[in-house]
Order: sequence, then structure tokens, then C-alpha cells
Amino acid sequence: MLETFPNPKRERKYMITHVNPEFTSLCPKTGLPDFGTITVKYVPGKLCLELKSLKYYFIEFRNKGIFYESVTNQILDDLVAACEPLEMEIIGEWTTRGGMHSIIRAEFRKDK
Amino acid sequence: MLETFPNPKRERKYMITHVNPEFTSLCPKTGLPDFGTITVKYVPGKLCLELKSLKYYFIEFRNKGIFYESVTNQILDDLVAACEPLEMEIIGEWTTRGGMHSIIRAEFRKDK
Amino acid sequence: MLETFPNPKRERKYMITHVNPEFTSLCPKTGLPDFGTITVKYVPGKLCLELKSLKYYFIEFRNKGIFYESVTNQILDDLVAACEPLEMEIIGEWTTRGGMHSIIRAEFRKDK
Amino acid sequence: MLETFPNPKRERKYMITHVNPEFTSLCPKTGLPDFGTITVKYVPGKLCLELKSLKYYFIEFRNKGIFYESVTNQILDDLVAACEPLEMEIIGEWTTRGGMHSIIRAEFRKDK
Amino acid sequence: MLETFPNPKRERKYMITHVNPEFTSLCPKTGLPDFGTITVKYVPGKLCLELKSLKYYFIEFRNKGIFYESVTNQILDDLVAACEPLEMEIIGEWTTRGGMHSIIRAEFRKDK
Amino acid sequence: MLETFPNPKRERKYMITHVNPEFTSLCPKTGLPDFGTITVKYVPGKLCLELKSLKYYFIEFRNKGIFYESVTNQILDDLVAACEPLEMEIIGEWTTRGGMHSIIRAEFRKDK
Amino acid sequence: MLETFPNPKRERKYMITHVNPEFTSLCPKTGLPDFGTITVKYVPGKLCLELKSLKYYFIEFRNKGIFYESVTNQILDDLVAACEPLEMEIIGEWTTRGGMHSIIRAEFRKDK
Amino acid sequence: MLETFPNPKRERKYMITHVNPEFTSLCPKTGLPDFGTITVKYVPGKLCLELKSLKYYFIEFRNKGIFYESVTNQILDDLVAACEPLEMEIIGEWTTRGGMHSIIRAEFRKDK
Amino acid sequence: MLETFPNPKRERKYMITHVNPEFTSLCPKTGLPDFGTITVKYVPGKLCLELKSLKYYFIEFRNKGIFYESVTNQILDDLVAACEPLEMEIIGEWTTRGGMHSIIRAEFRKDK
Amino acid sequence: MLETFPNPKRERKYMITHVNPEFTSLCPKTGLPDFGTITVKYVPGKLCLELKSLKYYFIEFRNKGIFYESVTNQILDDLVAACEPLEMEIIGEWTTRGGMHSIIRAEFRKDK
Repeated sequence: MLETFPNPKRERKYMITHVNPEFTSLCPKTGLPDFGTITVKYVPGKLCLELKSLKYYFIEFRNKGIFYESVTNQILDDLVAACEPLEMEIIGEWTTRGGMHSIIRAEFRKDK
Repeated sequence: MLETFPNPKRERKYMITHVNPEFTSLCPKTGLPDFGTITVKYVPGKLCLELKSLKYYFIEFRNKGIFYESVTNQILDDLVAACEPLEMEIIGEWTTRGGMHSIIRAEFRKDK
Repeated sequence: MLETFPNPKRERKYMITHVNPEFTSLCPKTGLPDFGTITVKYVPGKLCLELKSLKYYFIEFRNKGIFYESVTNQILDDLVAACEPLEMEIIGEWTTRGGMHSIIRAEFRKDK
Repeated sequence: MLETFPNPKRERKYMITHVNPEFTSLCPKTGLPDFGTITVKYVPGKLCLELKSLKYYFIEFRNKGIFYESVTNQILDDLVAACEPLEMEIIGEWTTRGGMHSIIRAEFRKDK
Repeated sequence: MLETFPNPKRERKYMITHVNPEFTSLCPKTGLPDFGTITVKYVPGKLCLELKSLKYYFIEFRNKGIFYESVTNQILDDLVAACEPLEMEIIGEWTTRGGMHSIIRAEFRKDK
Repeated sequence: MLETFPNPKRERKYMITHVNPEFTSLCPKTGLPDFGTITVKYVPGKLCLELKSLKYYFIEFRNKGIFYESVTNQILDDLVAACEPLEMEIIGEWTTRGGMHSIIRAEFRKDK
Repeated sequence: MLETFPNPKRERKYMITHVNPEFTSLCPKTGLPDFGTITVKYVPGKLCLELKSLKYYFIEFRNKGIFYESVTNQILDDLVAACEPLEMEIIGEWTTRGGMHSIIRAEFRKDK
Repeated sequence: MLETFPNPKRERKYMITHVNPEFTSLCPKTGLPDFGTITVKYVPGKLCLELKSLKYYFIEFRNKGIFYESVTNQILDDLVAACEPLEMEIIGEWTTRGGMHSIIRAEFRKDK
Repeated sequence: MLETFPNPKRERKYMITHVNPEFTSLCPKTGLPDFGTITVKYVPGKLCLELKSLKYYFIEFRNKGIFYESVTNQILDDLVAACEPLEMEIIGEWTTRGGMHSIIRAEFRKDK
Repeated sequence: MLETFPNPKRERKYMITHVNPEFTSLCPKTGLPDFGTITVKYVPGKLCLELKSLKYYFIEFRNKGIFYESVTNQILDDLVAACEPLEMEIIGEWTTRGGMHSIIRAEFRKDK
């Protein structure tokens, strides 16, 4: 589902950031909705992520049961597979549940 | 009391942060309540901290007399023992007492 | 338990506000702690609320099970009984539970 | 589905506010998710809104197609029917779409 | 160009607000771009403003030379003509030019 | 020096606000510079204040010795004389001197 | 000690505000320092408060033991006596002590 | 079109930053306007960018269709060509579209 | 006067911060009060600073004439002597005087 | 004109910062006033900058025509000459002109 387009400036390493403050999924235990902000930062290789398909990709989580720790790692795996970046970082910041809020941050580097 | 679950992405080093702005304990001298925000940041090893048991763990301090410096160090010791992380940092930020406020920050690294 | 002292300027109507951002009580259903900010605004009559005894009065709720709507109304009843103000307003602002936060506001006027 | 409980202080007019920053529904034209904050302010009559059932009531909109103007008015109608308040105000504040954001505010008063 | 749709709750007076922080027009003297935020607040009569056509209406100003004072008044005239509201208020807030920034606010009420 | 132009919408009462955060004059006692923000709010009659000449008018104070209380009143007198508004309000907000900061606010209404 | 100067615009009612965020006095019980912000708002009659003498007046409280409620009322009495304003309001906002902070607000109007 | 002037302090490496929060271009797909803030940071070599011509350079994008990723890279290429800096960084921060906002950051260093 | 207590976790290097926003001393030239925020950050060795005695230590400066540069250095010397930390940093942030505000920051490291 | 005094703690490297948000000079092209915040950070050698003479030094620019890039560099040259610091950094942050604002930052280090 994730679409890409050719990086318009492949000879230069530069950083692209997309911030989605409207991410929502379901808690697999309770079935209740979770809400968070997902930030995608990457240095493109041959391909860039197409913004509209990225939006639809995020909407796919809307009625899916998945834990905080797994969401961030799965998004990193999926986006790395889709566009083969030189570097990528995913940050998931979740709203308060039970008086606490959580942040999960995971990174990929091609040369590691 | 602290429960854990298997790290869903053990092959990747990533950072988990839980922020609890509703921590309260008692001052061992006066018996009066102290209030603070406890932040837990860690890179999981084999295990992740289960969020609900972490909440109940923090509630255990509610009627316990303990000094600022000791709370932060004890939480670090307890959470390291519970989930054996690769790295962990605990930050305790306390509300104003006598016109001053205090922050205590302690770190653990497995290889040290 | 609530102590008072004589209003030092009884011939003038003026407004006193005390803000307590460290209020905590227990949910009567779950036994879990609730946290909130209680604001007391009043126009004193013959008596002013003594600040230290007000603090101890609030601490009495620490291990008491009571609903949001009832806390605000009980504090208003107790403080009106203690100092017989010309006007008083109590505002309880509660932290997020289940993704929502709540505010309860109640007023007393002597001539009503 | 909306549950109520008896107003614990019926002889006093006081104001209850619940703020839900995690409201989401679907755009009936595009099927894409909308996100907003719904604020409920009311002066209770005989009944108060039970907070947990209010939360489940809001979740019912998650996969429902409905326009901004209609959401606010429907919530006002439903909540007035459920608890027969003396006064009620509903405010829906929506996130940016097409570079603009919108706020819809509707009120009910028993004596009007 | 401005489209409308029937007010879904005509029997109730309620307030709709649309905020456009991406308004731009040209200064008629210098031809240089001006930037501002246009806020539309109205109580609908029989008709509501359709959001997408409102957006296109604002874009029409992009390459048009017009003064601050005139923009606000023209938008008020155009939107009143399009949807015949019971009340409407337009606020134009302009970015800094020559070290000063300006706000223009105009109102319409049907019964005046 | 103050220039005006004909009010483009004389049949409607509306409010124009200009904010100048770059006002400076001299203290008549010490000769040292004072800095402040001058806000002009008015309902135009037949005439509007031309923005560029208003800017030059403010610059005239740059090397003039004048007290806080007098600046605000003089600006009100000068601008009322220049454009004969229906209402006008001038607010002068001054930066900290000797640990205190000051605000002077004066109003004119035609019918008073 | 408080000095005044003739109101430069006596024929107009206007508002002067002085804000002192560096007020400090002593608690008469404990001898420990209190800190607060004192705001003076007034409509001058024949006289204005001279700013430097106002500063020295505030410094007189530095080593004086006095309660929150009394400070605000005494400052109002002293400043009214010194400059005979048409209206005056004093607001004292105090820093946190024992987890609570307080605001005292008192007003004078000549015709009351 | 971009003008330059001789660096007035060539023997010292120092950093110049210009921030333009009023950048606008068109989406090449939809023809609809995009809005963003462009930040230019550079260490000048022999030449500095003349500010007024930089402003006109940015205005040239107003009615041009160009993607986010390309704008940032093209501005970097154009400005490097115009003033041959020792280092330059361009940051484009775009307003919300489809619930997400984006940031593109690209760098140039002479010795690379 | 400064009291200490044994570091409860000597085997771990951790950071303690105390922030005092209520520091005041006198200007040695004019005798007028200065106000500032003093921040103490340190890594304890065998001893921790006792908070109440630290508060009384700061109050000792209340009626003492001392320059900004000297206060920060003297506090660093005194606190290092009292508790022999591994590292310590003192930051003094002063309120506006003559339109400028100042920050003084000094550090101690045992091994230097 | 710039005065200095002997560094009271010469054996320790520490950082002094003075922030002047009330800097103003003239644009050499148009003669119109520019406004900015000048920050001076330095590690003193044998001498410290006397604060009052620094204030008068800044006031000297009030009616002087000088470009942004030159102001920052000239202040750095003058202050280095006056007090021979170990390190010094000057930051000039300018208010919006033509929709853009600018920051110029220059550094000196003795050993370079």
C-alpha cells in the first residue's frame, strides 16, 4: 500500500520529517482506542515516501489491536522495507492512560 | 509485584519512556506528602516493564516515608532488578518545598 | 480541624484565593488515587481561613474514597461552615482518566 | 447506553465540565477520519452523567460518518435527553483540514 | 462560487467558527504579498457555509490587490450575502509590516 | 504629519487595531531611552489612519523626553484630532525599570 | 515617603498600572521571607504616584513581619491616602508555601 | 535576481540566519497553495546575501508548482550558487495537510 | 551553617539539582535589592546537602551587599567546601536592571 | 567609554552572560530604526565588563546607521578589545522587516 517516488536529489544526504498527530489504534487487551503522535524522520536513499499513501498506511491501524512497543517497531520495519532509507527514526508519543504517558523511539541505520 | 513481558523486538536497541506526573510519597521527617513526576527511560533487554504493574508499583510509595535522594535510587534499583535493561535512567522532579524545587537523576548501564 | 483568624479588614469586601495543586483522594469504585487542583476563592466575613490548617484539612482526603462531584461540594460546605464567608467558590480540576479530564465548580453567596 | 447517577447536591446549582480531547469520527463524504476535542459543560438537575458510560458513548462515533455541525448538535440532544440538565453547552473543536480549523458551539437551557 | 447547505439544526441558535491562518492577498500599493489569519464566526439561519467552497473563496484573494480594512469588510459582505446568517463576525489579523501588526474586526446582526 | 484616507465602509461600525511593539522615547529626567508597546484601537468615523504615516508619527518620539503618563494621553489627543474616530483607546505597555513595569490605558468616545 | 506629582491629564479618566514582581516581606510567625508580585491599578484624581518613591515604599516591607491578607490591605490604604485616586485595586500574588499559593485582591472606589 | 554584498568581516567565521515565515508556493498535483517557513543559515565566504533581493527571490515561488522535497533542495542550490558560502543549511517547515505536517532539512559544506 | 547527610547511594554517580527562585541580596553600590534564581547541580561524593540548611544559607545573603559575579563564585566555594562533591555547577540568573538581565555560571570538578 | 573591573575569581573559568533586549540602531539605507536583542556571553580573563558602562555603550548605537552583519561583528571587536576575554560570543536577534527576521552570531576564542 505504501507508495514511493524517486528521490529528487539523490546525490545529497538530507533529512525528511513527517509528523502525524492523529494516529489511533486499539489496545489489544481492552479493545479501547489509543491515541498518539507518530513522527517519521529519514534520510532518503533512492526513494521518498509518498505522503498520501503514508497517510492511508497510518489509517490502517485505526481498528487494529496492537501494543505501544510493537506499533513503533512495526512502522519502522514497514517504512524501511518500503523506501530503503539510509537512516530512519520513528517516535511514538502516546496520550495519558492510568495517569502515565509513554514515548517509544526506534532507529534504523543502513550501515549497521 | 512488578510484571514484565518479552521484548517484542529484541534484536533492535530502542528506547522506551514512561512518565508518571502523579507520584506521591511522604516526607520521613514531617509525615507530610511530597509530590513529583517520575520519568523512566530504558533500552529493554529480554524484558519490557508491564505498564499496569508499573503503575501499582508507584502507588506503593503513597503512604511510605522516604527522602528525595533515596526514592530515585530505589526505583532505579527495583526496575533494573525487574527487567534487566541494557540502559536505564530515572528522573525525579519534585514540587516546591520551602521556596525551592529539586530534581534527582540517576542512570544504570549494563556494561558498567 | 479547620482554624480561622479574625478578618484584619472587615469593613472592606475583598477577595482571597488559595490554590492547592497537590490535592489527592481515592476513587471509591477502584480504590485508585485521583489527583487534582482545588481552588478556594472567598470574600471573608468576620473570619479568614488559617492557611496551615487548610493544608491539613486537604490532606485528610488523601486516603478517603470520594467522587469528583462530591469532593467539590463537600469542601464548599465545610469551608462555608468554618468561616461563614460573604461569598465562596470552589473549583476542582482533575487530571486525565480514560482520556477525559473534568472540572467541577460550585458557589455560595450568603444572601442567596 | 448513557448512564446517570443521582446528583449528590441537588439543592445547589453548580457546573460540571468534561473534556474529551480524543474524539474521532469519519467524514461522510470521504470516509477519512476527523479528530476533535469535545467539551461538555452542564448544570445538573436530578441526574449526573456517569463518566465511563460517557466515554463509551463517544467511542460509538469512531466509525460513524457525520459532519462537524451535526456531531455537536447530536451530542447536545443525546446528553440533554439522558440527564435532563438545567443548562448544557457542547463545544466541538476540530483539527486542521484544508488549512482551516473549525469550532462548533451549541447550548441548551431548560427554561428556554 | 460560495456554496451552502441547509442548516441541520435550524430550530437552535448555535455558533460556527472557521479559522483560516493561510490567507494571503497583495498590497495594492506595492504589489507585495500580505499574510493574515481570517476568522469567520456566525450563527446560521437557513444555510451553512460549505467548507471547501469557503476555502476556494479565500484562495481567490491570492493575487488580488486589496487593503486590510477592505478585505475584512468585503469578506463580511460576501459571506452574509451567501448564507444570510443571524449574526456574523469577521476578524482579520495581519502579520508585521514596518514593525507594526494590525487587526480588523467587523460584525453583522440581522436585526440591526 | 499624520495622514488619513476615507473610511471604505462608513455605514458599518467596525474596529481597527494597530500594535507597535517598537516604540521608544527618552526619560525626561535621565535622558535614558524608554521602550514600550503602543496599541491603537479605534472605530473609524469618516477617516482611517494611514499606516505608514502612523509609523513615522511614532518615530518622532524617538529622541523626545516625555513621561509614561503623558505619552499615552498625547498619542490619544493627536490621533483623535487627526481622524475624528467614534471611539479610540490607546494602551502603552512599558518594559521593566527599577524592577517594575507599567501600563497606561486611556479612552476617547465621541458622544461623551 | 510616597511622593506624587500632578496628574498631567486630569480632565480624562484613565487607568495606570504598576507591576512589582520583586516584592518581599517576612512571615510574622516564622520570620522567614515571603515573595510575591504586587500590582497597583488606579484611575488618578489630582495626583499620580511617583514611580521611584513607590519603589522605595515597597522596599520598606523587606524586613517587616506581616501576613498576606494584611499586606494587600495596608498597601491599598497607604496608596489611597497618598494620591486620593478615583479608583484603585491592589493584587498580591504569593509564591508557593506548603504546596499552596495565594492571591489577595482589594479595591477602593471614591464614591463608595 | 539574488543580489549579494561583500562580507564585512571576512577574516572571521560567523553565522547568519534569515527566517521567512511567509513562504508560499503551489502543489504541482492539485494547484492548491502550500504554506511554510523557510530558514536560511549560513557562514559567509566572500559574499553575504542581500536581504531585499532574498525576499523577492522567495516571492518568485508564489505561483509556481513544486513539491516540498524539491523546494528545499532548489533553494539550497540557488543560494549556494549566489553567495558561495562556507556552510549553508536550509530548513523548510510546512503547515498541516491531510492531518500531517512535514519538515525538510538540507545542508551544504564547502569542503565536502 | 550548611549541614550535610551521608550520600545514601555512594557507589553510583548521580545528579542532584536544587533550584531557588527566591534568592535576594543587595547591590553593594546602591544598597538596593537584587533578585535572582540560584540553581545548584552536583554529583555527591560522601555527603549530600541538607535542604533546610541550604535554604537558611541562601537567606543569609538577604541583607548582604555583593556583586552578581561574586555571589555565584562564593556560593560555589561554600557548597564545595561543605559537601566535597565530585562535580558541582552554580547558575545565577538575575532579573532586569537598566534594561538588561544577566546570567553567571561557574563549575567545579574534583579531578581538575 | 567601556569600563572594566578586575575579575573577582580569576583562577576559575566561568561564563558571564548579559542580555539586552532594548538595542536599537538605524538602517543606513533608509534611516529607519532597527530593533534587536543583543546577547553577550564571555569567559573573563583579567577583567570583567562593568554593566552600567556596557549599557551606555549600547545606547551609543541609537542614532547610528549600521547594517545587521556589521553591528554584531563591531560589538564583538569592541568588547574583546575592552576586556580581553578568554572566549566571547555575540548574538544579535532582529525583529521582523519585510516579513523576515534575522539572527547574526559571532565568536572569539583567545587561543585561535
